[in-house]
Amino acid sequence: MFRGQLFVSPVDESHWVNMNLLIQSLHASGHEVTVVRTATSWYIKENTPHYDSITVTLPEAINIEKQDFFVTFLVKMLEIQKQGTSPITFLNFYWEMLPTLSKIHAQSCLLGVEIFENKTLMQSIRDTHFDVVLVDPGLPVGVLVAHELRLPTVFNVKWITSGEAHFVVAPSPTSYVPTSGYAASDKMTFWQRVKNLLHYTLNTCIDKFIVCPHYDRLVDRYFGPDVNFYHLLQGADIWLMRVDFVFEFPRPTMPNVVYIGGFQCKQSKPLSSELEEFVQSSGEHGVILMSLGTLVKALPVEITSEIASAFAQIPQKVIWRHAGERPNNLGNNTLLVNWMPQNDLLGHPKIRAFVSHGGTNGIYESIYHGVPVIGIPLMFDQFENVLRLEVRGAAKVVEATKLTQQNFLEAVQEVLHNPSYRNNMKRLSALHRDKPLHPLDTAVYWIEFVMRHKGASHLRTESYKMRWYAYYSVDVVCLLLAVLLLLTATVVGSIRFVCLRLCGRRKPKQE
Amino acid sequence: MFRGQLFVSPVDESHWVNMNLLIQSLHASGHEVTVVRTATSWYIKENTPHYDSITVTLPEAINIEKQDFFVTFLVKMLEIQKQGTSPITFLNFYWEMLPTLSKIHAQSCLLGVEIFENKTLMQSIRDTHFDVVLVDPGLPVGVLVAHELRLPTVFNVKWITSGEAHFVVAPSPTSYVPTSGYAASDKMTFWQRVKNLLHYTLNTCIDKFIVCPHYDRLVDRYFGPDVNFYHLLQGADIWLMRVDFVFEFPRPTMPNVVYIGGFQCKQSKPLSSELEEFVQSSGEHGVILMSLGTLVKALPVEITSEIASAFAQIPQKVIWRHAGERPNNLGNNTLLVNWMPQNDLLGHPKIRAFVSHGGTNGIYESIYHGVPVIGIPLMFDQFENVLRLEVRGAAKVVEATKLTQQNFLEAVQEVLHNPSYRNNMKRLSALHRDKPLHPLDTAVYWIEFVMRHKGASHLRTESYKMRWYAYYSVDVVCLLLAVLLLLTATVVGSIRFVCLRLCGRRKPKQE
Repeated sequence: MFRGQLFVSPVDESHWVNMNLLIQSLHASGHEVTVVRTATSWYIKENTPHYDSITVTLPEAINIEKQDFFVTFLVKMLEIQKQGTSPITFLNFYWEMLPTLSKIHAQSCLLGVEIFENKTLMQSIRDTHFDVVLVDPGLPVGVLVAHELRLPTVFNVKWITSGEAHFVVAPSPTSYVPTSGYAASDKMTFWQRVKNLLHYTLNTCIDKFIVCPHYDRLVDRYFGPDVNFYHLLQGADIWLMRVDFVFEFPRPTMPNVVYIGGFQCKQSKPLSSELEEFVQSSGEHGVILMSLGTLVKALPVEITSEIASAFAQIPQKVIWRHAGERPNNLGNNTLLVNWMPQNDLLGHPKIRAFVSHGGTNGIYESIYHGVPVIGIPLMFDQFENVLRLEVRGAAKVVEATKLTQQNFLEAVQEVLHNPSYRNNMKRLSALHRDKPLHPLDTAVYWIEFVMRHKGASHLRTESYKMRWYAYYSVDVVCLLLAVLLLLTATVVGSIRFVCLRLCGRRKPKQE
Repeated sequence: MFRGQLFVSPVDESHWVNMNLLIQSLHASGHEVTVVRTATSWYIKENTPHYDSITVTLPEAINIEKQDFFVTFLVKMLEIQKQGTSPITFLNFYWEMLPTLSKIHAQSCLLGVEIFENKTLMQSIRDTHFDVVLVDPGLPVGVLVAHELRLPTVFNVKWITSGEAHFVVAPSPTSYVPTSGYAASDKMTFWQRVKNLLHYTLNTCIDKFIVCPHYDRLVDRYFGPDVNFYHLLQGADIWLMRVDFVFEFPRPTMPNVVYIGGFQCKQSKPLSSELEEFVQSSGEHGVILMSLGTLVKALPVEITSEIASAFAQIPQKVIWRHAGERPNNLGNNTLLVNWMPQNDLLGHPKIRAFVSHGGTNGIYESIYHGVPVIGIPLMFDQFENVLRLEVRGAAKVVEATKLTQQNFLEAVQEVLHNPSYRNNMKRLSALHRDKPLHPLDTAVYWIEFVMRHKGASHLRTESYKMRWYAYYSVDVVCLLLAVLLLLTATVVGSIRFVCLRLCGRRKPKQE
């Protein structure tokens, strides 16, 4: 069996949950994994049984209080949704968030500097003779390490720098491919297509003027002016895309994009006896789950009390993962918990619906287990995520800022009693599970493929190295138009000349 | 186990070899297959152990003498190559071939008419309750049957109507995706890009004005004006593409395109004792295989005698599949055969090189077994096929019309003695064989997937239904440009107005 050495450059927070799962699977397949982390990392622990770690200490000054950031972010998002999203509020919001975005990437680059400047560390990395660099290109410093070490790269990716990863690597006509940050389906009206193109332009500008300059400086410093940061990104051997087409809209892709959406999904395990007892006590009515993810500790109490009041009116039992202030009007049927075995619960036959913020992991787990969703999206890609289920008739969406006891109750009742939601989700589940290989095994397979063959360049186009006018055939079309024009002019000129000559001859005769 | 009913609409000749292999595999997996064939079909036999057949008798008048066609075609091709391909000869050649192309598709449509008009046959097809229609869309009549029966469609495809199938279903920038009929790599010079776009335009015109009208008339007759033939093609659920990226250049693709290139490849079996004895008699020098496929019965004798004379000068043994006149100057080391177990020979460790016309099946078999190729392309896609191996350093190409004893011998010697050819082919072989599932099993898996789920619409974009200006965002860009123009005009106008007012005020003071 081939045992490889992997250098992993992850992103902290929820991204790490995905990366860690992949690392555990790689470790179980006999490979050795080294993870680079910052000393202040919240989620990425130092050496564990399944990976070694390289800890880099960053200068204190630039550290970002992430928990604060997400709280501020949510408050702002709710505020904006309440006001109604006029283009001005929207752009203003983006404008205010830009310094933080810039800071996050500056910090990521600082990690790069610390690695590259630490000669002992670089030498020890070189001496390890890694086979591949596994990168979450949300913060793509690992790409520079791969370039320095002349190693093949595999991405574990959904988003890249400031947009959806496909846009960097596959043709993405904005006429039917919705841009990240804009919740639309693949069937857009004219005005939706206008907005989609504007969103795309905005994302491109942010990437070009806010994000990339950080990495361009780094690339310039260590590799000189001939190396292009964006080309390093586009040159990754394999893109393990955390996407599945029961969820994502069909769109163009490339041969080196491998789809591993739902790779975190697995069979549910039996519940603890207390939880099982609570679930069974629901009888024929069944149970509703509710969770708004790990980032949002609590919604404003005016929202949670509306939800609590709605829950109190239904015969179902409710398990609610809730970390904030306990609502006063909580019904007897509702169990508040700090943590719950979400996957095991979703796989339980008594579960009737899932109230979710629309985080990717939760969405894929509910697809896997065929549980319909009531979506309360709060920020980031959550709006796009729940929209994708809504379009397929597998979810009902309630806007957090317009949520009332009445409309939330109606949404829950509809998902519970209209069988189409459950049937549609069951159909998505059947399609999703029907694969020659589980997505996690697919991911490990292609990482091993890259290690075995020292890359996968035969699957990767190098068309990104072309000039834009050559890529879009602008030069060729201009030439052909010029030739056509010249031909037309010659023909028209000749005809005119002949006509004039004929007329010139005739006229004197007529007179 | 799920047992499905498949309706198969194949293409005769070499295409049938591929389809038949797939049918055998489906039969072995427990499915029942019905193949529609014409009474005059040369390759597709009536009922066999692994399929039932529906035989349709066409009016005699339109039958095309295919063997004659290929002989005429080859003679013409060689003539053109000798003259050097000026655009005029090239276009003239296309022009002369168009009536035959039109006739082939007219015949295919006649098959459609015979099926649709035979009410008893249609009823019996309806009564069979097929699960899926499997079509080779080179002659896409099966697509109409699928539409009539409201059944999902799977394509077994490389070419469609008159071009490479990807062009119909996936974005294909002509700046790096070579068009069918034009032998270029994915890295083109400016003039190659010009030629590629012209080839693409030519193919599109032939499709639009020569091929499609036949099917449009058929669709109009049976489904009315609201159904678009091209949309029926683009709406296929799964495209089993007979392509592998060790061979094809990387290019954009779609989620419902499944790559099964090399699905015909399999382990070699032991040779017959006579053949094994001949092969072993080659000693350390090994054996060279030569075959120019099934369509070309014989090359002109002036070419074969050059080849024979070159073979006579090498210490290797040669096995030559040859059906025409026996060259006088054949060496003692050369064995002429009418037929050979090509796959078993290619997998034999004594085989050093394969002299091939560049037919797809032979090329994939040589990739599978890692045998380097000396290519003598004659017609159709053979030029493109051998170019793909040449670019990867796994083949040497000799033009048939410029072939001399001397240059052919040099090509053979180079492939035999420069280890890079063999090494490159071995590398391609290793990459090709490294797959989670054999391509044939992949093909069966996705056909069964479509039968299990009654389609695969979640993998298929419907963007082809958009108007061209919407698809390419022409309308959106025009609007945005207009707004930009208006804004600029307003700003410039205002500034001018203010300036004039200011100047107007100042001037009187100065005077």
